[in-house]
Amino acid sequence: MQTKTELRPLKFNTAEQCVEVIDQRLLPHEFKWVKIKNYQEMAFAIKDMIIRGAPLIGIGAAFGIALAAKDSQDLDEADQILRATRPTAVNLMWALDESKKVIHQWGLDKNSCQKPDHELLYKQLLEKANWIMQDDIERCHKMSECGAQYIKEKFFDFTNGKYLCKQTQQEKKLRILTHCNAGALATGGYGTALGVIRELDKENLVEMVYSDETRPRQQGSKLTVWELAHDNIPVTMISDNMAAHTMKQGLIDLVVVGSDRITANGDAANKIGTYQVAISASFHQIPFFVAAPHSTIDMKLSSGELIPIEERDASELHTINEKAVTKIEGVNFYNPGFDVTPNHLIEAIFTEKGLFANS
Amino acid sequence: MQTKTELRPLKFNTAEQCVEVIDQRLLPHEFKWVKIKNYQEMAFAIKDMIIRGAPLIGIGAAFGIALAAKDSQDLDEADQILRATRPTAVNLMWALDESKKVIHQWGLDKNSCQKPDHELLYKQLLEKANWIMQDDIERCHKMSECGAQYIKEKFFDFTNGKYLCKQTQQEKKLRILTHCNAGALATGGYGTALGVIRELDKENLVEMVYSDETRPRQQGSKLTVWELAHDNIPVTMISDNMAAHTMKQGLIDLVVVGSDRITANGDAANKIGTYQVAISASFHQIPFFVAAPHSTIDMKLSSGELIPIEERDASELHTINEKAVTKIEGVNFYNPGFDVTPNHLIEAIFTEKGLFANS
Repeated sequence: MQTKTELRPLKFNTAEQCVEVIDQRLLPHEFKWVKIKNYQEMAFAIKDMIIRGAPLIGIGAAFGIALAAKDSQDLDEADQILRATRPTAVNLMWALDESKKVIHQWGLDKNSCQKPDHELLYKQLLEKANWIMQDDIERCHKMSECGAQYIKEKFFDFTNGKYLCKQTQQEKKLRILTHCNAGALATGGYGTALGVIRELDKENLVEMVYSDETRPRQQGSKLTVWELAHDNIPVTMISDNMAAHTMKQGLIDLVVVGSDRITANGDAANKIGTYQVAISASFHQIPFFVAAPHSTIDMKLSSGELIPIEERDASELHTINEKAVTKIEGVNFYNPGFDVTPNHLIEAIFTEKGLFANS
Repeated sequence: MQTKTELRPLKFNTAEQCVEVIDQRLLPHEFKWVKIKNYQEMAFAIKDMIIRGAPLIGIGAAFGIALAAKDSQDLDEADQILRATRPTAVNLMWALDESKKVIHQWGLDKNSCQKPDHELLYKQLLEKANWIMQDDIERCHKMSECGAQYIKEKFFDFTNGKYLCKQTQQEKKLRILTHCNAGALATGGYGTALGVIRELDKENLVEMVYSDETRPRQQGSKLTVWELAHDNIPVTMISDNMAAHTMKQGLIDLVVVGSDRITANGDAANKIGTYQVAISASFHQIPFFVAAPHSTIDMKLSSGELIPIEERDASELHTINEKAVTKIEGVNFYNPGFDVTPNHLIEAIFTEKGLFANS
């Protein structure tokens, strides 16, 4: 087995002063970097899911605002357009608010007569975006350590340099189910849920990761499966409706997923289907964990019902590989992009600032 | 709205002495009848899911045995080959046992010196197959009436010629979730779960049917959606992982599905994903019903754990529209075709002989 470079889905190209991202719509078939030269292209990249994943779209948006400053464009407008790309993830709003702080230091607003030094503002916004990205990678590592630590203590006794299963006192590895992609591809790097899995894998504690397909966009079968295979972590793909049966067969020890927004009471929005997995996990008494940066927590919302749920285009349901897979005429389609898992189904939320556990 | 002829997925072509079936692999894009001339072609049609659905494959197998007699082939071998096509559905075994009774009347076995009158045996086996088909259609109608009656009494007060919601005393129609295809296409005609829905629709009591996509073979989005649109019954497609969220949004009043085998204790095997829907329905206190002919009940098995679960080819998971949708190299696939819903998650089982309710 060969050690590969840590996967990074976004980088800044200093020579050309543009952003480069892996086009995640093309994975796993094609690994292609695309250049993003202005904020409009960044807005499109987020909306069309060239980049996706709550932390990564925050990072992308911060770079988008910097590009708008480079081009001396209306920063209020750029902010509004980027903010409107995806309504569910709160990290997007958080990252744009961080960039706004930089802009506000200049006292810039529409009624101000002060002329901004666009060159300097661009430099500062670029620094901010880079900081958000580096900071996110660091947060991913910290929350992954936090999660792995909790899971190890829950499942194992560490005796004579070995991890022994608490029940059997035999050596054991974990079988983990995840949904969607909360990996390096969804963040600055390393990942949230997949970061926790990487951390456990470092100590050779992962027997198998089961990855839900995650219809309709198939982030599980396209991205998670690709990303784990890239890192030589054993992975098995199942379709979304197999999760409960797989649990019943005794093949799952725990579930870990990411989140796009967590409300003050600990309810967590994540990719559609997460809620169903959480219900099934609870039914089988399998612990269900969420890993997310602290910026995912939206203290302004008291509970999950208040999270806006993006409804996406019907074509995601009826067309696969550019061909219709169902009857379209006379048929309705319902395509919510996210759902909310109530706090009582979540054993613990792992963040870079420590964990929030249901007691 | 135009009244269409009742849908029949299989018919006997008397002129050519062969069976004709709708190739269900091609729906909804192409509506094509294919001719099946011998039992080997019938075995292939069942295995490759040209025809599918527990009652229909029983009917197909009975016609297969008749074709074997027409061709003076080894009936024991034909029986074994047809029996081995799909292991989960018990109706297949039941139909072949029915045909065997006809064969046994002739005292035919390998050690017998009696020469069979193949012409007459063929005629009798064909009569049996036709009887099984007609009988199945009749059973579908009866179980559908049984189910619709139960559901109407559960949800409505019938007052002054109107169905009024028990809670609100307002007129109301039902929002029904189904999984896979338990329709005319899965039976001799009319359907089991979709038969119940058709019966409710006759009295204009169906507001919307939500059809799970049913990965990996997409019987929901390919067959159920097509079949309901064919009959002008309102239908909305969702992906499998949206069921729980749709329930939480208050969009589902009840769930009704078919079954491939029901054990003596009332556990029901059905298409993979049914179990997960049943867990979600229970979590949301939504009644979950099974509709199936009495021949689905396998009294020889005491409980669901004893039902053999077919594991199907990985290609069903990784390839859609002849193109890979995931990374294949270095990735594992788990593709169970069925799962088992325990009796305590099922409010009632509708059959042509009446209902079995959990009290």
